Amino acid sequence: MKSVFINGLGLIGATMAKIIKASNPDTIITAHDTNPNNIDYMVQEGIVDHGVDFATGAKQADLILLATPVSIICQSLADLTELKLKDGVLVTDVGSSKQPIMAAAHHLMDQGVHFLGGHPMAGSHLTGSQHSDVSRFINHSFFLVNGNASDSEITAYKDLLKTGQLSFSALTAAQHDQLVSATSHLPHLAAFALANTIIPEVDAMPINPGIPSGGLLDTTRVAKADPTMWTAIFTSESEELLEQLDHFEKQLNILKEAIQKQDGQTLQTELKAANQARLKLEEFK
Amino acid sequence: MKSVFINGLGLIGATMAKIIKASNPDTIITAHDTNPNNIDYMVQEGIVDHGVDFATGAKQADLILLATPVSIICQSLADLTELKLKDGVLVTDVGSSKQPIMAAAHHLMDQGVHFLGGHPMAGSHLTGSQHSDVSRFINHSFFLVNGNASDSEITAYKDLLKTGQLSFSALTAAQHDQLVSATSHLPHLAAFALANTIIPEVDAMPINPGIPSGGLLDTTRVAKADPTMWTAIFTSESEELLEQLDHFEKQLNILKEAIQKQDGQTLQTELKAANQARLKLEEFK
Repeated sequence: MKSVFINGLGLIGATMAKIIKASNPDTIITAHDTNPNNIDYMVQEGIVDHGVDFATGAKQADLILLATPVSIICQSLADLTELKLKDGVLVTDVGSSKQPIMAAAHHLMDQGVHFLGGHPMAGSHLTGSQHSDVSRFINHSFFLVNGNASDSEITAYKDLLKTGQLSFSALTAAQHDQLVSATSHLPHLAAFALANTIIPEVDAMPINPGIPSGGLLDTTRVAKADPTMWTAIFTSESEELLEQLDHFEKQLNILKEAIQKQDGQTLQTELKAANQARLKLEEFK
Repeated sequence: MKSVFINGLGLIGATMAKIIKASNPDTIITAHDTNPNNIDYMVQEGIVDHGVDFATGAKQADLILLATPVSIICQSLADLTELKLKDGVLVTDVGSSKQPIMAAAHHLMDQGVHFLGGHPMAGSHLTGSQHSDVSRFINHSFFLVNGNASDSEITAYKDLLKTGQLSFSALTAAQHDQLVSATSHLPHLAAFALANTIIPEVDAMPINPGIPSGGLLDTTRVAKADPTMWTAIFTSESEELLEQLDHFEKQLNILKEAIQKQDGQTLQTELKAANQARLKLEEFK
């Protein structure tokens, strides 16, 4: 993979670029981004060799990495079917909703182009290439949802990312979307709703509420995430998210009813379960 | 205030003890705790002079500080009415639900004993005296809900805590409970429910989900909080919490309906509002 084209140099795209360049200094990386600052920064850093338009970059690449919001990844997969790509090109992505992306890649795969879906599990409320960091994904999961890539292509792609020290796992698009809805989209939804509940309440108080508690700051931290990106995620993967939201509302209701009935025993049982579950999260490696 | 008796040397009680001793090295601090390790630790640290039973400690003190869970504070306020306390004693507490505590203090105040409610806003999922730290509350709010203490008693109490560098605010029990329900109890409830939603889902997956994202860890962090303490809080201040939970469910429903209708515009508006609200939280000082 001598030539890599990356569409989108936000936090994730730029981190991928840094990992690829660190693993393979001879690889030529071209990139397109609607924000010229991201291109300028990455060229100055010596990671991206030069900026290109989408069609030019795609046609010259051995690897095309789509690193934009999901809706644009889907559009790019359609656009690629109109271009004469290099023989043996591998198309991949880092989008967080795999079912719509795999569906959008179908036409391209029907043309014989190889597509491998990917998703590094280490997002951030930070955005932009300047927050990218080659160590960002170390030991984090990188989920692979394969379309029609060969084993050797998958191995070559993993090798291209070796500096990232990622923990690769293969799963289906449906498994991926369910897992990500539960562990990422639902917590974001809850945090956005919590911020919209709490802060107007605090503003209406006649006193200065003082420095917020760590608990309040932590619980709502991901509500700082980019509204445009998360609107795209919530609408592109709505089925799984609505299912997870149903589960969450059921859990809220269990606590609500126990509080209404002053049922300390049920509360104690539920809070202990949550306690154990949360502590267990820290055991995953 | 030459002699202070503290009932309960958990994280908050022990932190208060350290602040009082740092401000006033000559003050004798006695304490009672059902866990002898907390007493031993604090005596070894040179903060608590010696452990005592509740009645002995209370009867000898110029200041009685109740630092147990709320239900036990209420019980202690009743127990104090049965004891011959020192003339001019000030009774105070650090409980997180002020309306039930002020109600429980009524009989004692009717006897002419002075009571001043207090609540430092810097909890933690950590528990126990060994995590106490004189710097824990610096610049954090310390809410004062006065019963019948005089201005000079309030000034003397603030002075006793001067090393803590606390930011004192006076408010009514109802204001306090509404504010704390919104900014502390609701986020805890949401975190407990989220942990109970997400983790069983993750456990059921056929793959290792890898290191959890920072977002998931942060959003659920306070679900590590002590189930017994939080069962007491949820049941003792249920009216305000249920009201906040209603508000939260409304916000969840706004997002849910927008997702169901694929209404990107509403989602964008709501997520932007949450974004701004959350960023505003960091401005409070």
